[in-house]
Amino acid sequence: MTKTVAIIGASGYTGAELIRLIATHPDLEIGALCADRKAGMRLAEVFPHLRHLDLPELTKVDTVDWSGIDLAFAALPHGTSQQIVAAIPERVKVIDLSAGFRLSDTAVYERWYGDAHRAPELQKTAVYGLSEFYRDDIRAARLVAGTGCNAATGMFALLPLLQAGVIDPDEIIIDMVCGVSGAGRAAKEAMLHSEVSEGTHAYGLPQHRHTSEFDEQFGKAAGRPVEVTFTPHLMPANRGILATCHVRGDADEIHATLAERYGPEPFCEVLPMGEAPATRHVRGSNFVHVGVVGDRRSGRVRVFAALDNLTKGSSGQAVQNANLMLGLDETAGLMLAPLFP
Amino acid sequence: MTKTVAIIGASGYTGAELIRLIATHPDLEIGALCADRKAGMRLAEVFPHLRHLDLPELTKVDTVDWSGIDLAFAALPHGTSQQIVAAIPERVKVIDLSAGFRLSDTAVYERWYGDAHRAPELQKTAVYGLSEFYRDDIRAARLVAGTGCNAATGMFALLPLLQAGVIDPDEIIIDMVCGVSGAGRAAKEAMLHSEVSEGTHAYGLPQHRHTSEFDEQFGKAAGRPVEVTFTPHLMPANRGILATCHVRGDADEIHATLAERYGPEPFCEVLPMGEAPATRHVRGSNFVHVGVVGDRRSGRVRVFAALDNLTKGSSGQAVQNANLMLGLDETAGLMLAPLFP
Amino acid sequence: MTKTVAIIGASGYTGAELIRLIATHPDLEIGALCADRKAGMRLAEVFPHLRHLDLPELTKVDTVDWSGIDLAFAALPHGTSQQIVAAIPERVKVIDLSAGFRLSDTAVYERWYGDAHRAPELQKTAVYGLSEFYRDDIRAARLVAGTGCNAATGMFALLPLLQAGVIDPDEIIIDMVCGVSGAGRAAKEAMLHSEVSEGTHAYGLPQHRHTSEFDEQFGKAAGRPVEVTFTPHLMPANRGILATCHVRGDADEIHATLAERYGPEPFCEVLPMGEAPATRHVRGSNFVHVGVVGDRRSGRVRVFAALDNLTKGSSGQAVQNANLMLGLDETAGLMLAPLFP
Amino acid sequence: MTKTVAIIGASGYTGAELIRLIATHPDLEIGALCADRKAGMRLAEVFPHLRHLDLPELTKVDTVDWSGIDLAFAALPHGTSQQIVAAIPERVKVIDLSAGFRLSDTAVYERWYGDAHRAPELQKTAVYGLSEFYRDDIRAARLVAGTGCNAATGMFALLPLLQAGVIDPDEIIIDMVCGVSGAGRAAKEAMLHSEVSEGTHAYGLPQHRHTSEFDEQFGKAAGRPVEVTFTPHLMPANRGILATCHVRGDADEIHATLAERYGPEPFCEVLPMGEAPATRHVRGSNFVHVGVVGDRRSGRVRVFAALDNLTKGSSGQAVQNANLMLGLDETAGLMLAPLFP
Repeated sequence: MTKTVAIIGASGYTGAELIRLIATHPDLEIGALCADRKAGMRLAEVFPHLRHLDLPELTKVDTVDWSGIDLAFAALPHGTSQQIVAAIPERVKVIDLSAGFRLSDTAVYERWYGDAHRAPELQKTAVYGLSEFYRDDIRAARLVAGTGCNAATGMFALLPLLQAGVIDPDEIIIDMVCGVSGAGRAAKEAMLHSEVSEGTHAYGLPQHRHTSEFDEQFGKAAGRPVEVTFTPHLMPANRGILATCHVRGDADEIHATLAERYGPEPFCEVLPMGEAPATRHVRGSNFVHVGVVGDRRSGRVRVFAALDNLTKGSSGQAVQNANLMLGLDETAGLMLAPLFP
Repeated sequence: MTKTVAIIGASGYTGAELIRLIATHPDLEIGALCADRKAGMRLAEVFPHLRHLDLPELTKVDTVDWSGIDLAFAALPHGTSQQIVAAIPERVKVIDLSAGFRLSDTAVYERWYGDAHRAPELQKTAVYGLSEFYRDDIRAARLVAGTGCNAATGMFALLPLLQAGVIDPDEIIIDMVCGVSGAGRAAKEAMLHSEVSEGTHAYGLPQHRHTSEFDEQFGKAAGRPVEVTFTPHLMPANRGILATCHVRGDADEIHATLAERYGPEPFCEVLPMGEAPATRHVRGSNFVHVGVVGDRRSGRVRVFAALDNLTKGSSGQAVQNANLMLGLDETAGLMLAPLFP
Repeated sequence: MTKTVAIIGASGYTGAELIRLIATHPDLEIGALCADRKAGMRLAEVFPHLRHLDLPELTKVDTVDWSGIDLAFAALPHGTSQQIVAAIPERVKVIDLSAGFRLSDTAVYERWYGDAHRAPELQKTAVYGLSEFYRDDIRAARLVAGTGCNAATGMFALLPLLQAGVIDPDEIIIDMVCGVSGAGRAAKEAMLHSEVSEGTHAYGLPQHRHTSEFDEQFGKAAGRPVEVTFTPHLMPANRGILATCHVRGDADEIHATLAERYGPEPFCEVLPMGEAPATRHVRGSNFVHVGVVGDRRSGRVRVFAALDNLTKGSSGQAVQNANLMLGLDETAGLMLAPLFP
Repeated sequence: MTKTVAIIGASGYTGAELIRLIATHPDLEIGALCADRKAGMRLAEVFPHLRHLDLPELTKVDTVDWSGIDLAFAALPHGTSQQIVAAIPERVKVIDLSAGFRLSDTAVYERWYGDAHRAPELQKTAVYGLSEFYRDDIRAARLVAGTGCNAATGMFALLPLLQAGVIDPDEIIIDMVCGVSGAGRAAKEAMLHSEVSEGTHAYGLPQHRHTSEFDEQFGKAAGRPVEVTFTPHLMPANRGILATCHVRGDADEIHATLAERYGPEPFCEVLPMGEAPATRHVRGSNFVHVGVVGDRRSGRVRVFAALDNLTKGSSGQAVQNANLMLGLDETAGLMLAPLFP
């Protein structure tokens, strides 16, 4: 029951990560690879690490023959993505990895992203792609919006706690330490090795755009408006996001809530009470590690979540959603163990 | 007016950093280098980067001729340091870089460090070595206790704010991202390149020992007990600590307080309002960069401080203190610009 | 037709890499995990990145019930390995990843490794585990000796050329740049992040031990003694070895020889003439990329090979050999695409 | 006797390195900083690590008042540099850090760099800036051409050996491992952290441009044409170049030749026979470490040289040359010890 997918935006990191995962996926095959500016090239020229694969040549998206495609992954900048997704035939399911369809309210989108939404009607049909929390909706969806990678990390730490009402929604502080691949493959001075290596700094100040996803999802979970303080930091490593969340609540209750919630989840590992996760222990995998550590101040607790931004944070999540949307085993192709060291 | 110093514990990173700084210091020369287990070796065998210097051979500390020594730097583990410092002749000034003399209350020391203080009488004479805050005491001191490098970073961000009463002492959360050289040169599995690189994790949980310094210094500054939540994270870089401090207060007042307090300080740079510092911009230098960024939630503010743990956080601070104790220009030998990239 | 394997030395990096690969191998399951000093622990405590796997507890090797084991991987120091392999029941096939059985002449072994061979009889039965060159012998073997990871890299570049007689055997210079994980997980000062990062140096001077493997294999391929100059360098990256081999011959003939030899090989990719490979494009995979670049001096050619020392250089190679020895598809479990970035 | 300098191209890495070194230079002060595209900005906005310095604002080069300037450093791309240097008043001494004036024969320049030389008359007056080998010429020069950083590294290893005739000029192979800052600060995909980190590859194939400097200087030293094979590799570290040179000669004679030649040199350290240098032990300094290691094959020898590409390889060398040209102590401002770790 092999299904055929197209990847639009195959020359970026999330595109390459999709191809890497699909390369050993038992039920998916790649029918089209699009990268407008590199149309006509072989993927091996763009991503030499994938040169052993027998893949279609890169094409422009408007030349794709959609007749044999079951599902399209769009890994494009958000504005472009809205336009391109709108042009895909209705019978092809779509997973969009950009920020183009993550916020249900287009006015909120426009406030955070600074330009008008180019596919407002389509937005109404989009399901938020946090697989573990929208599984049934995703199964039934035609359009799924992949989460922000930072947003996903914070949500794995906190969504079950807000849903269960075991933390104070007004006292949430989220600090993150994030790898550089999240910034993508575009050539920017700030992302040069010489600029990024050997140090750290906070970025996205004063308010990183993924904050908008926290607002919507946390508010929904808590049943009331929630505003968090979110401060991401760049670290000199390619992959990985660690969320350190400061909350008020009872550490044991928090740990029990997470352990129960994630017990049946194949990709969510809750560490023993008092242990904290490391990003390097999930690298290249679809796993998320969650930990809870109390504080000497009664009522203050640190909740940690670690995942790989390119995998569980975007392309692995997308494949998980594709599995759901296409009626495949949810874990198919995704049980690759993390790469360490 | 050249002064002569001894370095005890010259085979560790803080020892090497002292030698690096003294190498171009106009008024200090090295009279003795001690490293018990490496006695008899040349420093170039232990630290090839210093091979161009004409230095005394490494010796055991008990063979030092103290007669020509004006000041000793002790860069040793804390228990050992208490014993060795206690044996240095009274006329020799001492700067201890360990945790051995940082806490004025030996009972508190014993609670946090787990063993009995070995020089409790000497402790009474020790001055806390945060140069910008204890300058006059340091000038007059015979024994100065170098600060914890994490502790120093947090204090540069917050001490002036607690002294001025412009933040709520009950609502302080300090996250840090720290380079690995702070763990020293001892061979530990957890500090191998393969273990540390390409990722991050929180360490020192549930309560890092430097928390005890925050307790004492913040309490003194606020005039009442202050308990902070402190969570350090390891990053794959050798040098640098970034403190991200979450406080309640008015962002403008906080920025103004820091700008005024640090205006005359030669090593403390306050960034323009809304900007955040990066550790790579202070690497190898005695500078600390401080930044203030508001939050969308009224009353919440992020205060950042970045310094090099081996320089401003320990050995550079120690040289600054030596300058004060020996009547030299406080900045002598310390105006080296950061190394970037 | 699932086969059951034991891993002896499961607490080191090559042990962990075996487990990572077997985790998604369709035909292998793990029956025993041994790590003498960590017996009684769960693997998740030693390698948190493998915590999602349902694995046997770590045991001492002498408590293993061999009755259900088809094949044992020994990932131990070489002296120890000779002893332990000698005690494994004859009906269990063995792949040794140490240097214990790589050299057919025990006198040569003793000269390079400095101690007496502890299983000289067994040595006579050992097959050298370079899969692509000893495939038939490996299929029939009971004991296979995994290659040195540096040795394998150089051989992928040069063995076909020496066999075909297209390069001068007296004019070979091999420089390598190697990742740090090859040094293993033992705590050594020289392998600390602070020591290794941000620089490079040549190591294993004047003659690295893997030179002995070149001597034997290159001599066999050329039909006469061959002595190369081999100089490995450490780079601040965990995985990967790049061999830059300087030879005399005709660049086009060299490229054609390699392209023809590796054409049918599933794991060996020969780049287009004039292109050079990068270690980051094979990371975490069983692929080796080979490239040929001429020089302006007629008759001088550079032949490059890049592989992942933990995968194609040791544990991936071992699984490939296990597939051969157990009658499985040679590529089973090994088609994982490289992890980039 | 303070001298005033201008830095043209202050927004690149070599420009920043010049400022870093001059910041603590006792006899130099900065009179003008030029960066055409960033004119009007403060240097702290471009290089926050230099924010503690009191520096002139960035200006366009054509607005510089040359009347108070003794010497100009030009840190620009080579074509641009030829034009701009040609427009500097004759009484201002000039050190050009580009490739614009390194090759005495403009036809050779045009062959390697692919465009016509824009200041051929000026070229005739240029002195090659390898301080230790052209000291007297540099003292007398008005225009000095800084060397390529790779070229300098190879020359420190081999020039004295070719001059002394102790190695075979026809049998030289130079492999290098180089840090990424040599590629400059321009935003290029290939220099992103995600692309560069965690691996290595050879670059500049088939013939890196610095080969042309080897041709000229080695030919001059040997008194006959010399063609080397030169293969640089990129490593994931910002600073440092390690040259591994394979030569034919007598190891002891080679070591003795280097030790004697560099004995009086303040910045050249020859390691004990059999030891190899590491780039991390010269980082941020003007030192070059040279080592000699024999090979088991009689007559083959490895000669290593390590330096910091931004310091001894370009900006440190430039300051050393400025000291010579301005009649200052040659080592003034340059005795900064390397930064390790």
